[in-house]
Amino acid sequence: MVHIGIIGAAGLSGRELLYWLERHENASVELVTSSKYQGQKVTDVFPELTTCSQIYQPNGIDVSGCDLVFLAVPTQASLESVPKLLEQGARVVDLSGAFRLSDTEVFSKYYRLSHTAPELLGKAAFGLPEYFSEQISAARLVANPGCYSTGALLGILPLGELLGELDRPPIIDAKSGVSGAGGRVEDDTTNYVSVNENFKAYKVFLHQHQPEIQQYLQDLSPYREDAAGEVIFTPHLLPVDRGILSTIYLHFRKPIASKEIQERFSKFAEEQEFVHFLEEGVLPDLKMSVHSNRCVIGAETDQSEQNWIIVSSIDNLIKGASGQAIQNMNLMFGLGEAAGLL
Amino acid sequence: MVHIGIIGAAGLSGRELLYWLERHENASVELVTSSKYQGQKVTDVFPELTTCSQIYQPNGIDVSGCDLVFLAVPTQASLESVPKLLEQGARVVDLSGAFRLSDTEVFSKYYRLSHTAPELLGKAAFGLPEYFSEQISAARLVANPGCYSTGALLGILPLGELLGELDRPPIIDAKSGVSGAGGRVEDDTTNYVSVNENFKAYKVFLHQHQPEIQQYLQDLSPYREDAAGEVIFTPHLLPVDRGILSTIYLHFRKPIASKEIQERFSKFAEEQEFVHFLEEGVLPDLKMSVHSNRCVIGAETDQSEQNWIIVSSIDNLIKGASGQAIQNMNLMFGLGEAAGLL
Amino acid sequence: MVHIGIIGAAGLSGRELLYWLERHENASVELVTSSKYQGQKVTDVFPELTTCSQIYQPNGIDVSGCDLVFLAVPTQASLESVPKLLEQGARVVDLSGAFRLSDTEVFSKYYRLSHTAPELLGKAAFGLPEYFSEQISAARLVANPGCYSTGALLGILPLGELLGELDRPPIIDAKSGVSGAGGRVEDDTTNYVSVNENFKAYKVFLHQHQPEIQQYLQDLSPYREDAAGEVIFTPHLLPVDRGILSTIYLHFRKPIASKEIQERFSKFAEEQEFVHFLEEGVLPDLKMSVHSNRCVIGAETDQSEQNWIIVSSIDNLIKGASGQAIQNMNLMFGLGEAAGLL
Amino acid sequence: MVHIGIIGAAGLSGRELLYWLERHENASVELVTSSKYQGQKVTDVFPELTTCSQIYQPNGIDVSGCDLVFLAVPTQASLESVPKLLEQGARVVDLSGAFRLSDTEVFSKYYRLSHTAPELLGKAAFGLPEYFSEQISAARLVANPGCYSTGALLGILPLGELLGELDRPPIIDAKSGVSGAGGRVEDDTTNYVSVNENFKAYKVFLHQHQPEIQQYLQDLSPYREDAAGEVIFTPHLLPVDRGILSTIYLHFRKPIASKEIQERFSKFAEEQEFVHFLEEGVLPDLKMSVHSNRCVIGAETDQSEQNWIIVSSIDNLIKGASGQAIQNMNLMFGLGEAAGLL
Repeated sequence: MVHIGIIGAAGLSGRELLYWLERHENASVELVTSSKYQGQKVTDVFPELTTCSQIYQPNGIDVSGCDLVFLAVPTQASLESVPKLLEQGARVVDLSGAFRLSDTEVFSKYYRLSHTAPELLGKAAFGLPEYFSEQISAARLVANPGCYSTGALLGILPLGELLGELDRPPIIDAKSGVSGAGGRVEDDTTNYVSVNENFKAYKVFLHQHQPEIQQYLQDLSPYREDAAGEVIFTPHLLPVDRGILSTIYLHFRKPIASKEIQERFSKFAEEQEFVHFLEEGVLPDLKMSVHSNRCVIGAETDQSEQNWIIVSSIDNLIKGASGQAIQNMNLMFGLGEAAGLL
Repeated sequence: MVHIGIIGAAGLSGRELLYWLERHENASVELVTSSKYQGQKVTDVFPELTTCSQIYQPNGIDVSGCDLVFLAVPTQASLESVPKLLEQGARVVDLSGAFRLSDTEVFSKYYRLSHTAPELLGKAAFGLPEYFSEQISAARLVANPGCYSTGALLGILPLGELLGELDRPPIIDAKSGVSGAGGRVEDDTTNYVSVNENFKAYKVFLHQHQPEIQQYLQDLSPYREDAAGEVIFTPHLLPVDRGILSTIYLHFRKPIASKEIQERFSKFAEEQEFVHFLEEGVLPDLKMSVHSNRCVIGAETDQSEQNWIIVSSIDNLIKGASGQAIQNMNLMFGLGEAAGLL
Repeated sequence: MVHIGIIGAAGLSGRELLYWLERHENASVELVTSSKYQGQKVTDVFPELTTCSQIYQPNGIDVSGCDLVFLAVPTQASLESVPKLLEQGARVVDLSGAFRLSDTEVFSKYYRLSHTAPELLGKAAFGLPEYFSEQISAARLVANPGCYSTGALLGILPLGELLGELDRPPIIDAKSGVSGAGGRVEDDTTNYVSVNENFKAYKVFLHQHQPEIQQYLQDLSPYREDAAGEVIFTPHLLPVDRGILSTIYLHFRKPIASKEIQERFSKFAEEQEFVHFLEEGVLPDLKMSVHSNRCVIGAETDQSEQNWIIVSSIDNLIKGASGQAIQNMNLMFGLGEAAGLL
Repeated sequence: MVHIGIIGAAGLSGRELLYWLERHENASVELVTSSKYQGQKVTDVFPELTTCSQIYQPNGIDVSGCDLVFLAVPTQASLESVPKLLEQGARVVDLSGAFRLSDTEVFSKYYRLSHTAPELLGKAAFGLPEYFSEQISAARLVANPGCYSTGALLGILPLGELLGELDRPPIIDAKSGVSGAGGRVEDDTTNYVSVNENFKAYKVFLHQHQPEIQQYLQDLSPYREDAAGEVIFTPHLLPVDRGILSTIYLHFRKPIASKEIQERFSKFAEEQEFVHFLEEGVLPDLKMSVHSNRCVIGAETDQSEQNWIIVSSIDNLIKGASGQAIQNMNLMFGLGEAAGLL
């Protein structure tokens, strides 16, 4: 039984962790914290978690009784907390952006923060289990990927060596439900009247998941920014609760046969518990992935076979955050990768 | 040309006033205020009002150049402002609840405020043009009705003398879009994730429109609380931008023929520009009224003909607030009642 | 291991059965049918059921290898199929309205069908496990309750003896998501543009769940139509996928103390796995129940303590249909009542 | 007074024409037709058009009393009807795709129809008033542009000569509300449960508006397919009633200064009644255009100034269909371009 603490358990990612961990046979939540709600019952904030008997503790509480801490707080708070949590002996899955980027200058530019724990960057595993399962298994600190990054990377990386043939940058036009873009934060951006019957792009050319996608594409494939150009990533806000659909435009310097694309994705999907690839001519919608830990992918080309459009669909709160975090926990503690997630 | 000021023009009612007044041939908006946005352009807050060139002034600004002031601020602020505005010579249509109830004790109970201008209560006309057109025409102060009250009163009052036959209280089960229940206020209640794919009752037995409905039913019909019981009113929050649908349960001590109900509503609808009554067997939905100043009504009975269900549909921001306010302005300044509202 | 057949597995209730049964450790789906999709894979119709390998069989197929058949077809088709399925040796949980009403005349009036299998009416258990667990355990045929009936009955029946004090009929103002009011049927009623940003009452005084609520209220409590009047039930269509919220108006001939109401509901909720009662002053919203098999209930009164408003919330596809059907299966086969449903 | 006939007035475009024409001081609707609803009142189908007294006539009715016919029927029906309507002496604004493409082979490929009236192609004006006002003024037949084409062309064409510097094809990632993608058609695609809380791409590389965008970009600017590549256009289905937001990716062979982009759009917007360009750093959302005839545009670049993202927002039923059709009528009959559209 893995003994769990959840720091920042009053947000939507925290709620989703609680929901899935209650169903997990090898995990036991021992401790939940929230600065805003400390002293209140979890069920006061999330009445639908009817079987949860936890009471929110203050955020700074000692976690030395926990085997694993999920950290679901803003990036700056993660920077400050992670060193302390590791010192107290817990392993950590950090859901923030604090330890995903290897370059602290890029980090500073996109997060508008100085990185105060650069010594941990080399030690953090990037928590994309489809590519880093070994590192995750051994890690004391896992940097859980961004929601957009998960959808984009799983829609591109399976093409493997073919990505060396890109002669233009991948363009990722991504559309996210509200829980991936602010959630329960009480501001004008996520007010019902502002979002309902509406749609918009935001943080164009400025979103912090762009360098994350850029870095891991380069680390894990022959795509190179200096050959093909820098990834273009445009997030949009959809009037739905959950889900990210990414429409990805790729251009290859020579035709790539449909069969080759299909085979690479199909092989990858067969090996990966939570990746599904649709047969030719079918593209995913959001409802194929939401409320599950799945990433569902489809691909289409035109007559040239140089232009490919890949569409990937995930639930931003599950495969894009808390489900993936539990998948990482499963690897870290030698449990089945899918335990508690089906 | 009526010269208009709008105090509190950065909320949804203010926006709706601006939208319709721009299309009104006999009105000219001279002044708009907002404490939060003073100094900013209206189009910074509402970019869709593309032809509006106004800049927000501070709330306390002198309005002596205005023939009419629409006051779209919270009830407490109205209590404080109305005496000053009247002194400056402007006529006032107040969209708050400050001057609707004649009994200051009831006011205090439901609004949790003391009434600081009771001397004005006798002078304010209740701005339901279908029943108070004479008083409105002559008034210096019009208390624009609550959105729920408008939908409920127009769904019940046309029954006239028949309401003396009620032997149980009217039950009004009302459902409102978000703009009628908090609007752009930035709190947890109207956050997208809280409202979308959700539905709930709120302020059960406590909503401030209950005494308003109660009072005007008694003033305008033979319904009496001591004979039939106090009106029961339950507001609910619908996941839509706009509209109030009220399902009204009436029970008469003897059967009332369908023909009689139909005739009373039909006659009323013929006389009133903005009231539509549907033929037997048809009930309104929200889309029959939203984006218009209409109240649309239908009625059904069971075999007993003692139980009647009336359904009324309005746009809470238009007939339930700003459209009705303009309808009142038209009466006050001798314009056609429907001017600028079609 | 219970071997399961699902007749009519291409509708939303069928889909929901498949979803939950895949997670059930003691059940194995052996057979699924659909007249429209026979020969196609389940995943062609519901791509999100990624692990389902079933192919739709024709509706008339022999079910003698099944221990239990879930029948999710229209009422008329159920009338025809149930006798045959029972003859083939399967036990049956029927999700239609065919065997819920004991009076065939009432059945004919509301369903506009003659009842062709009246001999089975006395043998069918009404599948509301909170009240009929013994009958369900022993039954060969279970009539799974209507979605509206489930929400209404669980919101009223726990009051038990107090219902003898009602002096007016219960008024049930119910609001349902689209999946409970037509679902995937391709007609104008459930077209996106017709439903979105809209709301309406439908089948007023005519809905077939009214006599179902009426009958079981009388069978299970001292409420009597001739003393208090016939139940008034008004269904409405909400612009959401799932969920039914019922606002129930009760009037007692004498005051009932809040403590007494609270205690009766609390006691009932303690005994029942899937019933939750909220503390005083809190009413449920839809999100407290959707995606679960729960019924969540709250109650409020006014100063008279004679008027009570009860609000109940369920997921129409789960507690209102397929979850409850599985709960019934669990009882029929001696499994834990909550097996596979948490 | 222009005497109007509307052929196919029971769809969403027809409804929108009726809504706006009732407010138009120089137009009078004389005739409306619908094959499905002939003999019924318009208000039976669209109860919210309360002041419309028209009765649907059969589609083939003589229109010789009409000055102008709006044709809102499927493309094949337009092909058949337009020659007859012109013979009867009416001028025609055709809302279908029948007369937009000059190349009948391309037409056949995308519409899967043979073109039966090629002789009219040279005589039809393309009804984009911002670019073809002279031709429209003189035309007997106007081919009203596709909704997606309107949003895309107005987002790209104002760049004028700069489009000769494109070295890659424009990528148009467009997202449309349901009324632009099937509307009231009763199929599975636009069923509420299929669309709500969902999002998907459709007709990828196959949509009939792609060749329309391609053709008019080439006709009206120095962009050339053989130099930059064929336009890539991907439509998506948004869970909203109305609106199209197009995210347009442009890549120039050399940097284009922000000032130059701003100036070209600003100049264009100043000259055009219904085009609005947002100041630097602001992009439109859907709510800035819906319920109006506006196209609202914004632009962003990255540090290279070679990558530009243009976002345009329109209401698909108004500027994307019926509003633009009325704008064309205004030009054809010498009325102010904005008459009846503000």
